[in-house]
Amino acid sequence: MPATPDKKYLNHANEIGLVSEKTFSFDGIFNLTSGETLDGFQLRYECYGRLNAKKDNAIYICHALTGDHHVAGVYTEQDHKAGWWNHVVGPGKPIDTNRFFVLSSNCLGGCRGSTGPSTYHPKIDGEPHGANFPDLSICDMIRAQHALIEHLGISSLHAVVGGSMGGMQALQWIVEYPGFARNAIIIAATAQHSVQTIAFNEAGRCSIRGDLGWENGNYPNGAGPTQGLSVARMMAHITYLSDVGMEEKFGGEQRLDPSKKFEFSVQGYLDHQGKKFVDRFDANSYLKLTEALDRFNLVGEDGLASAFEKVDTRTLVIAFSSDWLYTPKQNKDIVDALLLAGKNASYLEIDHSHGHDSFLIDSGPFLKALGSFLKEEDHANDSDQVLEDDGFRKLKNRYEVKKEADFRAIDDWVSPGDKVLDLGCGRGLLLEHLRATKNVQGLGVDWDLNKSISCISRKVPIYQEEILSALSKFGDDSFDWVIFSRMVESLPEPGKILEQALRVGHKVAISFVNHGYWRNRFNFLLHGARVCNEVYPHQWESSHLSNHFSIREFEDFSKRLLSNGMQINLGRKVFYRGDWLRKCKFLPNFRAGLAIYEIIKKG
Amino acid sequence: MPATPDKKYLNHANEIGLVSEKTFSFDGIFNLTSGETLDGFQLRYECYGRLNAKKDNAIYICHALTGDHHVAGVYTEQDHKAGWWNHVVGPGKPIDTNRFFVLSSNCLGGCRGSTGPSTYHPKIDGEPHGANFPDLSICDMIRAQHALIEHLGISSLHAVVGGSMGGMQALQWIVEYPGFARNAIIIAATAQHSVQTIAFNEAGRCSIRGDLGWENGNYPNGAGPTQGLSVARMMAHITYLSDVGMEEKFGGEQRLDPSKKFEFSVQGYLDHQGKKFVDRFDANSYLKLTEALDRFNLVGEDGLASAFEKVDTRTLVIAFSSDWLYTPKQNKDIVDALLLAGKNASYLEIDHSHGHDSFLIDSGPFLKALGSFLKEEDHANDSDQVLEDDGFRKLKNRYEVKKEADFRAIDDWVSPGDKVLDLGCGRGLLLEHLRATKNVQGLGVDWDLNKSISCISRKVPIYQEEILSALSKFGDDSFDWVIFSRMVESLPEPGKILEQALRVGHKVAISFVNHGYWRNRFNFLLHGARVCNEVYPHQWESSHLSNHFSIREFEDFSKRLLSNGMQINLGRKVFYRGDWLRKCKFLPNFRAGLAIYEIIKKG
Repeated sequence: MPATPDKKYLNHANEIGLVSEKTFSFDGIFNLTSGETLDGFQLRYECYGRLNAKKDNAIYICHALTGDHHVAGVYTEQDHKAGWWNHVVGPGKPIDTNRFFVLSSNCLGGCRGSTGPSTYHPKIDGEPHGANFPDLSICDMIRAQHALIEHLGISSLHAVVGGSMGGMQALQWIVEYPGFARNAIIIAATAQHSVQTIAFNEAGRCSIRGDLGWENGNYPNGAGPTQGLSVARMMAHITYLSDVGMEEKFGGEQRLDPSKKFEFSVQGYLDHQGKKFVDRFDANSYLKLTEALDRFNLVGEDGLASAFEKVDTRTLVIAFSSDWLYTPKQNKDIVDALLLAGKNASYLEIDHSHGHDSFLIDSGPFLKALGSFLKEEDHANDSDQVLEDDGFRKLKNRYEVKKEADFRAIDDWVSPGDKVLDLGCGRGLLLEHLRATKNVQGLGVDWDLNKSISCISRKVPIYQEEILSALSKFGDDSFDWVIFSRMVESLPEPGKILEQALRVGHKVAISFVNHGYWRNRFNFLLHGARVCNEVYPHQWESSHLSNHFSIREFEDFSKRLLSNGMQINLGRKVFYRGDWLRKCKFLPNFRAGLAIYEIIKKG
Repeated sequence: MPATPDKKYLNHANEIGLVSEKTFSFDGIFNLTSGETLDGFQLRYECYGRLNAKKDNAIYICHALTGDHHVAGVYTEQDHKAGWWNHVVGPGKPIDTNRFFVLSSNCLGGCRGSTGPSTYHPKIDGEPHGANFPDLSICDMIRAQHALIEHLGISSLHAVVGGSMGGMQALQWIVEYPGFARNAIIIAATAQHSVQTIAFNEAGRCSIRGDLGWENGNYPNGAGPTQGLSVARMMAHITYLSDVGMEEKFGGEQRLDPSKKFEFSVQGYLDHQGKKFVDRFDANSYLKLTEALDRFNLVGEDGLASAFEKVDTRTLVIAFSSDWLYTPKQNKDIVDALLLAGKNASYLEIDHSHGHDSFLIDSGPFLKALGSFLKEEDHANDSDQVLEDDGFRKLKNRYEVKKEADFRAIDDWVSPGDKVLDLGCGRGLLLEHLRATKNVQGLGVDWDLNKSISCISRKVPIYQEEILSALSKFGDDSFDWVIFSRMVESLPEPGKILEQALRVGHKVAISFVNHGYWRNRFNFLLHGARVCNEVYPHQWESSHLSNHFSIREFEDFSKRLLSNGMQINLGRKVFYRGDWLRKCKFLPNFRAGLAIYEIIKKG
């Protein structure tokens, strides 16, 4: 009796279902960055969803080193496994095939249907290219993809998306074809391999080339350096996982192999990974592709920001906390350079234990980030939903932001088109408001992932990072305004941070709860204990650390800055009384509950 | 003309100079933990310094996986390279050969002169053991070392010291021979390999066994799986370094190979490491030793603390921040278990960018830690020196500690022989004093390395760690006293931390600056700004975050604990006036500058 086919990928409203491969043939000479040429090439590809009449709803997905073009769906009713990103791509999924036309191809140099070392050489009848296949670059791969897209009559992309090597391709896309993609999502990638990564790749290549079966790359198809390739895969596979992730899967009670075939479970797992890989991957492809990755270097001599000069794409970079192959730091470097070049860029760091391969795993915040970023339009109701989902302070609707006392003052001060950095921006309400009313170019900084995803869904560029670390990365005078809205109280040594803020911005707006407010003073005199109220909600034992200050202390500090030679002026100031509604001009350090200051850098 | 010999290792007061190898032969049957036997064995060893008349000044040094017994000195006047730990071992060096008799041997199963797979099989004339060499364990290695030590007429060790595999041997030493070593220093080690480490070793072994030259382990001496062994070494070598360290050495301007022989500098480095290793190491030894490491498991089914039940050795565990092979976490696990088993154990974490191999590098804090720990006697003058060197608050001499107001009260409350945990212990002055006057068993916790090393030099056991993280590791009722001396103000959400402290201790002593002191109140009323004085030394802009509180807030908190069902009593309390000298009984929340409370857990 034949096995019952697994129907879970078929006939469901949110599954793509049956898909099929297509082949694109490029005829003519294709120039490679190495100076060599290919006499024509083929790309194997798949596409899902429908191209709209304007042909502007295409999303291109770039795969990782050992991935392929089979992103979603199944080939036959009998398939037990769908494409590698089936949980991401489909009707109603984060990359929504009801709205987008999704394309993906096996990369040039690959071994899953596109032209590569294992395909036949046009000049040598019946022989694969083998070791004669020319050196490739990431740029060659995306130029080939561009040829496919042109062939389909598409002249712009809604987005280019990729993880790992795919992320590096997406990065090359926005550099090579400025503005071609309106959006880019670069996941777990890097602008340049670390020395450690090159070293791991090199050990893997030595393993392949040291295998007698390699025969200098001229092994016949079906044969080759199976042992060497298997060891290379084992080693690389370890770098795709994390220490913690491996411990969860093969540690503790699972430590010893239950089948007794191996001593430790992880040995059996690696053995399986190595053998499976040898069956599906070509050793020469592996050599060529890892070399392309090792050589990929957008940093060059002039630095990464210079490579990004012509970029005209709204970009989101996503890193995973446990990724030690392409680390959060390496992903942040991309965002730092994009911001330095004045581009619209966001950074999210998702806490996940699966290491580099986290981008292949079904995880809530990751999917939410992808979906939020790709949404064409901002829907007020959606945003409100996000607010309530996240469980943060609930506003009746996002226009309540106008009622926030310090937002009113800052809104008053900022000029149309200003560049604004909001430190500790939370869910991005102020920046969303300023963009709507003043068309400002905003960037928020917040370390909280959920709040940062809320920013993404508000179309507010967000850098998920600690404030001092983020500040240190911006160039001098990068912003017209740097805003601290009621958060300086939670910063250690705020003087240093304010000096940094005055380096990167022309003006600083700072709002704070005036600790010198008369009720606090009398309370402390009479009770010798802190006050507990809306502004200071915690008893001593449940308080976080803080550094409250008063209007007087702030003004004394600015005098000390001046006497230390800092070229600043205190500009406008606004004080509100204890109700945060009525303004207050007289004896503010005694009578004001909230203060908002403008600091202006001279010159 | 012959090259001038490098004299830097000769004829210097702090160099061992010329050394020579010795050989110990064990005759008879040696039982291995696997159940197999060896019909006699040899250990190649070296020793430096002089064994004293009492034969109690010996220090045994255990080497790492690919290290050997040549720890220090040179063999000939022409040697350009000294032993691998020459900067650690020598006259006046941290392991001081003027005071100690230092011993080290090539491990059993090794290939540098001791019996192993490449030495000749006694039963098969002229053939190496090869694949027939029995499986080894770390325990077998240290039992062989014990036989050598007995042979030398030594019945106790001043210390056993080792890094990496040597650290695991040192750990096995203190378990297998309780009390034999009075001190142990375990560096960059683990009580059990992580799954990731096993995976890397397995990939290396597959590389060796997959090489046709391996011949199932029966290759003749001088031949063997050179290619496979070289790849295994390359890969392992990456795990000995750190990402940052590799970037420093082979990144930036050094990224491309200047010799053009390779593309990237790191390729040439790995190639060199691989080739050099093949010349000096035996593949079968590598297999046997890595298997012994992977199988090393003191955790077992009953947990690590249970393995440490009989330990009777004062132990220091040192980890390096960038070590991702045997991580700080793995090293802390050893200390956690030793403490859980009630043993004298200390933990230091040294910030160093060289990854696992940091223990082989000459670094100041590391050498200072080794030397301080091994000192036989505590010298008051030395300790004072440490105080001044570290640049912390200077006391005229360490007995000034008695003048510290809260130390006086705590000294009064603690009973002789009590177990005392001092959280935020700084340089360990209180615990040193309590040990001298009350013979308490103390443990300090502080996150600062320099202060922690000062504790080591005071013979105060120290756990260099964040307070909440450290507290979470201790068992219920592990201490008679938990002490917070003027540091609760710097803890977020102190209620949770105090509850943890009451879990691990019978009593808690807490001293704090009373924020409700009358001068603070009047100052705040009049000026609406913080006071700046000796107790609160910083202006707003240079303040760290804090959570000051008053006597009243502390007493309110303890009432809330009681009403929440916590079974505690407030016991003795002592208040000092603003001068911290005169006591104060009347209206303490108004009049006291310093408060010290005893909290007693009921039942």
